[in-house]
Amino acid sequence: MAGNRAVTYVGSGRVEVHDIDYPGLELRDGPGVNPANVGRKTPHGVILKNVATNICGSDQHMVRGRTTAPEGLVLGHEITGEVVETGPDVEFIKVGDLCSVPFNISCGRCRNCKTGKTGICLNVNPDRPGSAYGYVDMGGWVGGQAEYVMVPYADWNLLKFPDKDQAMEKILDLAMLSDIFPTGYHGCVSAKVTTGSTVYIAGAGPVGLAAATSAFLLGAAAVIVGDLNADRLAKARSFGCETVDVSQGEPQDQIEQILGIPEVDCAVDAVGFEARGHGPDGAAVEKPASVLNSLMEITTAGGSLGIPGLYVTGDPGAQEEAAKVGSLSLRLGLGWAKSHAFFTGQCPVMQYNHQLMMAILHDRVQIAKNVDATPIPLEDAPKGYADFDHGAAKKFVLDPHGLIKAAHPDLAVGA
Amino acid sequence: MAGNRAVTYVGSGRVEVHDIDYPGLELRDGPGVNPANVGRKTPHGVILKNVATNICGSDQHMVRGRTTAPEGLVLGHEITGEVVETGPDVEFIKVGDLCSVPFNISCGRCRNCKTGKTGICLNVNPDRPGSAYGYVDMGGWVGGQAEYVMVPYADWNLLKFPDKDQAMEKILDLAMLSDIFPTGYHGCVSAKVTTGSTVYIAGAGPVGLAAATSAFLLGAAAVIVGDLNADRLAKARSFGCETVDVSQGEPQDQIEQILGIPEVDCAVDAVGFEARGHGPDGAAVEKPASVLNSLMEITTAGGSLGIPGLYVTGDPGAQEEAAKVGSLSLRLGLGWAKSHAFFTGQCPVMQYNHQLMMAILHDRVQIAKNVDATPIPLEDAPKGYADFDHGAAKKFVLDPHGLIKAAHPDLAVGA
Amino acid sequence: MAGNRAVTYVGSGRVEVHDIDYPGLELRDGPGVNPANVGRKTPHGVILKNVATNICGSDQHMVRGRTTAPEGLVLGHEITGEVVETGPDVEFIKVGDLCSVPFNISCGRCRNCKTGKTGICLNVNPDRPGSAYGYVDMGGWVGGQAEYVMVPYADWNLLKFPDKDQAMEKILDLAMLSDIFPTGYHGCVSAKVTTGSTVYIAGAGPVGLAAATSAFLLGAAAVIVGDLNADRLAKARSFGCETVDVSQGEPQDQIEQILGIPEVDCAVDAVGFEARGHGPDGAAVEKPASVLNSLMEITTAGGSLGIPGLYVTGDPGAQEEAAKVGSLSLRLGLGWAKSHAFFTGQCPVMQYNHQLMMAILHDRVQIAKNVDATPIPLEDAPKGYADFDHGAAKKFVLDPHGLIKAAHPDLAVGA
Amino acid sequence: MAGNRAVTYVGSGRVEVHDIDYPGLELRDGPGVNPANVGRKTPHGVILKNVATNICGSDQHMVRGRTTAPEGLVLGHEITGEVVETGPDVEFIKVGDLCSVPFNISCGRCRNCKTGKTGICLNVNPDRPGSAYGYVDMGGWVGGQAEYVMVPYADWNLLKFPDKDQAMEKILDLAMLSDIFPTGYHGCVSAKVTTGSTVYIAGAGPVGLAAATSAFLLGAAAVIVGDLNADRLAKARSFGCETVDVSQGEPQDQIEQILGIPEVDCAVDAVGFEARGHGPDGAAVEKPASVLNSLMEITTAGGSLGIPGLYVTGDPGAQEEAAKVGSLSLRLGLGWAKSHAFFTGQCPVMQYNHQLMMAILHDRVQIAKNVDATPIPLEDAPKGYADFDHGAAKKFVLDPHGLIKAAHPDLAVGA
Repeated sequence: MAGNRAVTYVGSGRVEVHDIDYPGLELRDGPGVNPANVGRKTPHGVILKNVATNICGSDQHMVRGRTTAPEGLVLGHEITGEVVETGPDVEFIKVGDLCSVPFNISCGRCRNCKTGKTGICLNVNPDRPGSAYGYVDMGGWVGGQAEYVMVPYADWNLLKFPDKDQAMEKILDLAMLSDIFPTGYHGCVSAKVTTGSTVYIAGAGPVGLAAATSAFLLGAAAVIVGDLNADRLAKARSFGCETVDVSQGEPQDQIEQILGIPEVDCAVDAVGFEARGHGPDGAAVEKPASVLNSLMEITTAGGSLGIPGLYVTGDPGAQEEAAKVGSLSLRLGLGWAKSHAFFTGQCPVMQYNHQLMMAILHDRVQIAKNVDATPIPLEDAPKGYADFDHGAAKKFVLDPHGLIKAAHPDLAVGA
Repeated sequence: MAGNRAVTYVGSGRVEVHDIDYPGLELRDGPGVNPANVGRKTPHGVILKNVATNICGSDQHMVRGRTTAPEGLVLGHEITGEVVETGPDVEFIKVGDLCSVPFNISCGRCRNCKTGKTGICLNVNPDRPGSAYGYVDMGGWVGGQAEYVMVPYADWNLLKFPDKDQAMEKILDLAMLSDIFPTGYHGCVSAKVTTGSTVYIAGAGPVGLAAATSAFLLGAAAVIVGDLNADRLAKARSFGCETVDVSQGEPQDQIEQILGIPEVDCAVDAVGFEARGHGPDGAAVEKPASVLNSLMEITTAGGSLGIPGLYVTGDPGAQEEAAKVGSLSLRLGLGWAKSHAFFTGQCPVMQYNHQLMMAILHDRVQIAKNVDATPIPLEDAPKGYADFDHGAAKKFVLDPHGLIKAAHPDLAVGA
Repeated sequence: MAGNRAVTYVGSGRVEVHDIDYPGLELRDGPGVNPANVGRKTPHGVILKNVATNICGSDQHMVRGRTTAPEGLVLGHEITGEVVETGPDVEFIKVGDLCSVPFNISCGRCRNCKTGKTGICLNVNPDRPGSAYGYVDMGGWVGGQAEYVMVPYADWNLLKFPDKDQAMEKILDLAMLSDIFPTGYHGCVSAKVTTGSTVYIAGAGPVGLAAATSAFLLGAAAVIVGDLNADRLAKARSFGCETVDVSQGEPQDQIEQILGIPEVDCAVDAVGFEARGHGPDGAAVEKPASVLNSLMEITTAGGSLGIPGLYVTGDPGAQEEAAKVGSLSLRLGLGWAKSHAFFTGQCPVMQYNHQLMMAILHDRVQIAKNVDATPIPLEDAPKGYADFDHGAAKKFVLDPHGLIKAAHPDLAVGA
Repeated sequence: MAGNRAVTYVGSGRVEVHDIDYPGLELRDGPGVNPANVGRKTPHGVILKNVATNICGSDQHMVRGRTTAPEGLVLGHEITGEVVETGPDVEFIKVGDLCSVPFNISCGRCRNCKTGKTGICLNVNPDRPGSAYGYVDMGGWVGGQAEYVMVPYADWNLLKFPDKDQAMEKILDLAMLSDIFPTGYHGCVSAKVTTGSTVYIAGAGPVGLAAATSAFLLGAAAVIVGDLNADRLAKARSFGCETVDVSQGEPQDQIEQILGIPEVDCAVDAVGFEARGHGPDGAAVEKPASVLNSLMEITTAGGSLGIPGLYVTGDPGAQEEAAKVGSLSLRLGLGWAKSHAFFTGQCPVMQYNHQLMMAILHDRVQIAKNVDATPIPLEDAPKGYADFDHGAAKKFVLDPHGLIKAAHPDLAVGA
């Protein structure tokens, strides 16, 4: 049996790569595993040899110590890999299949799954609807920033790529199907982006850039991305976005310079609860409601706000008292006067990953290029986390077995 | 030319019936009329002889002095009447037609109207999208709690009843088509109420009862209405609703007793920004976020919140500082964890009034009975306002010309 | 091991009750079993003790010899029963659960199932998408007009009733969830029936009556049912429908007498390919396109046609040559001029059965009464088939273990 | 007052440019004018100086003598022009505005218009819902292949371009907004084309090419266009489409070579009732049902068919008897087995033209290039008609005042 190296949270601000158990078809006890899930059998699961497993901004929330994540938690919910073992109940997925794993774990048997709401599956997390790999309060499914990982309900959860060779050629694009591409796309779909829309996206991190990419794919006329980080804004401009530097103040004026009016049809919040203020000193101040209040200002009456950015039920490390219990001071009266609609929650990846895979395989979209997907060795994960935390305008893709490097020897592999 | 008696706001807490000008096909200067609208010609308008014109909870916000409504403002946006004069541009509406008037004034020519968003018409209110008769900051269109009123863009705005005699028989039901029935229905549609849904409706005032009526019409399995007012809860029970007395605390426990689980599929906020607290002392305390935070607790993951209850951009009379600028302390993190969607804004009446008229005319719904629509003479409007403000479980319908009384001599007419 | 009595097709016009094998968790060879399915293991399946299993109009197509159904085929796809054995992969369904079985067999793992399209599952029928129990060319899953039946993919397929005692009280209503109630509802949903709609339903057989029931549940203002059979029309009138006797000619005139105009908003074809002509001699003549052509005449411009009535790819017994290869002479030009939309295919039962169950359990609908659900012993199935074929205005529910009779001793049980 | 030169149908196969009356704000008697419309006043109308007015395939149906179009009928329903006079009721459109005219004439006041169904307006055509300029049986509104044309209900119907200079730069693209671009887009929207779809479009005429352009705009993964005409197929390939030459037989095999499977997700019929057969001799034979039957074969189960191609209620010149009364021999049983949905009718242009204009103005789409929009002088219209009828892979745009030529002196202007 192989060993299993894995990225592990070891305390506020720190991750290390540790040896952990090779996965089996059972949920074992461990850091963060819900007691009700300990010993849960998963004959419907498979073991994946991970080909690409990405570092996500929502991992950063844990690593920064903003959550109750326990030490020893194995991280990682953006997983792409090859099936090396199938449980006895697996019927359609086969050993050798190269697959994308939706970050939401779902059973495929509950009322929510039956209606496509896989982000709030009722059967995988004893605490509440919805789950994910390697995440605090999500049931205790072991994270996938590792050499191997177990994926339950494999026939339901896995998206098989039709051709392995073709898939390895586009592996950095396909690796984005597990989370950020569908998440950004969901933000745009929620915001009703369609042919001819003008769109504002708050946040130029990987999800924001994925949302901007999605907005173009959905036919947007103009895509405007706002952030405080100049490198990330430059990245957004590299594929046709207009940009707003929110360190210069509220986005209205800059939007008016771009569009002729200070409003957009659709808005996406790709920032979430760790939002900063706007204006010259904005970066120094946590203002958890600043993004949403700003979006109500700039979204046209009748518009919709897609909110894929994470808001949490409690934030012990928040600067504001209200924010510690997850409350935000929102100008809902403004939104009401404009008949806004607001769409929150985890992206149900399965609703979108097949169609986005098709767009990738037929060369309709360059998601890896747009987010600067950058493969690095698994062992370099700590450096990747640090660089990302410092605002690197990159999306780090861990390459646990060197398979990405082997397929793309030309790619500069390194953080 | 006839005179025109009209209900007029004369200062905080007070309305009186005054003589005002008979309406013409032009917007004249007067209290609350936007300067940019003064002198606006309305050859597309008609003059209505009002048959039924209702007192609305949103009028109360003004009368209580919670807004910047000017003294002398003529009130009234729930209007049903007979056409007595048509402007030269009116082509399809004829003198003698008995019609319902959507409370939203809309032009039928702008981008929003073309997509059915008549609650945010771009051409009728110089201040911002959206307008209404007799309402502060809505452009200055003269209110309809009067003997006569002018309705602009009549071919677009008016819903003609197919048969006048039949309509007079059901006039108290049809009078609800101008606002509360579509508004309650819109709340339910926004909340995704459909066959078999379990629904919680916050507020048992007329809009809440209209929402409950709509929930049944949409096929709901169980409709639960919450309020602090025992008379209004009794009214809700009279047509099959379950009820929750929120003076006994948060609604979860009572919902669990009714449904077996403490959650519902769909929730409607029919209260708005003047929300009170829950629990024994709740009625004494303004808690503008209490309803929405409560709805996030009790709505199932994946559910939607319809928010027809009015939230305002500013509330000078609020007890909380944040509320004065229209901010609410919302537990959005809770809603996010449950993937909630939130739908706000004025109901676009025209999207629903034809189909609800059909339901009334074919005896599928008893909206007047369910909200206890009670006709009173126009001159009794001040008493009607006072009784309604004291929590009377009635919907007062002003009868400016005695036509309702003439058609229904059996009805006890009086506040 | 128990025996297993089952209704078996034994040649054109004839069914008999035979002893067949007790079901196991494997698809065995037999009449109509697709060779590619022989030996298929179903560890995800359960064995049901059938409580109610209905005779369906689409069974009649086979029994009348209009299909290539082989002799020996065990019939029955409308199944409600109690779980008596679970396969090793079944996780959430337990022995003792009382459940409704959607007539469509689906895997819950393919792309179509993931998007709710369970009527065209890709993994259960080697011939083509879509399957059903006891049906020709549907893969060979053994029919359920029997004492016991095997249901594959049980966690996915079964709808568990929340309370067995409550369910046995309403068993005749709940028995309609396996097919005709969702099928009728799907027809109405496809036809865009909603609050205030006027609806025409072609056919007053059980699916037509279920569609009419659904139309009311969806809020229709007026529901008009057309048929040649006076008893069935009387049944429709018993719960508030208007009726059209198509033996008197095309339905326009009668519709105009009812509604004042010769058109409806929405139309449902609950007849299908064995349609007869209209007018005095209509019953004698097969006119497979008569219903659809008639619906295009009477449906308003912009309306939709829901077509749950079965049309087949080949009909060897048809009177017209074109019909033998499944072709119909349709006036599509008329539909095009009216911008009609047409929705065909098997109802995906799982999209609707939970919500319709809720409506039944909360007493919002009386489906059993409206279709005259009539329990009869399994051994009386041949008589039930014969009576139904002769136009009895009843829906026969087989009671293989006498459990319905035991729960409802007052019900006259007998064909 | 100016004169008015106009393209006029003068008998089967022939058009000529004649002098006609300069338009006024009234519908005058003339060839094809419905008596009930004669004398109809249009104070809500404007007079347009036409800048671009295109020849359409549906004009060809009339010119080929396949309809009851009367001699003397002025043709043309694809109109873009500058307002030179406004009626007294026009409020928002001003003299000097450069506008696109939806080919559907609609009133903006009826129930259908209020719900966006402008293709079946109830108030403009006394014969039946729906109307168009210069078209047989459409009420008698004078066609726009002329120097000047009257557009009724101008505030409602006209789409004003935000900047005239910018608009003249893109005038050939914007000229496609009056019909074929929205029509092709509507076909794709009806067929549920979205990100990642595989799409088959029957017909590589201008509407087919516009549909293909729309499919890419909607994010399709693969767009396959089928036709008998090699030039038109080459044009389709010029912007990234795959092509199928139906003269080689049914499209399945060629689709399988392209996609690996013989099916697509979505299909669009951009041919209509003058369809030809497939295979080597197909071009010689009218087979009005061949396209739709073929689309049922190649569209995946659960797919939708968008049918913007025109089917008529009667076709006196048809080769088949059934086709003369608008009947087609359709394999509906096949569609039913695959749960297909079918969407027919005129495109409601107003639902799409604003958003498509935005896509053009922001350089997201090259519709003029893709359909080879080719300006020619008005006087060359007869040659344009003839060339188009002979299968020229071009979209002819009449330039009645030489304004296109003046703005684009580099463009080769000539048929």
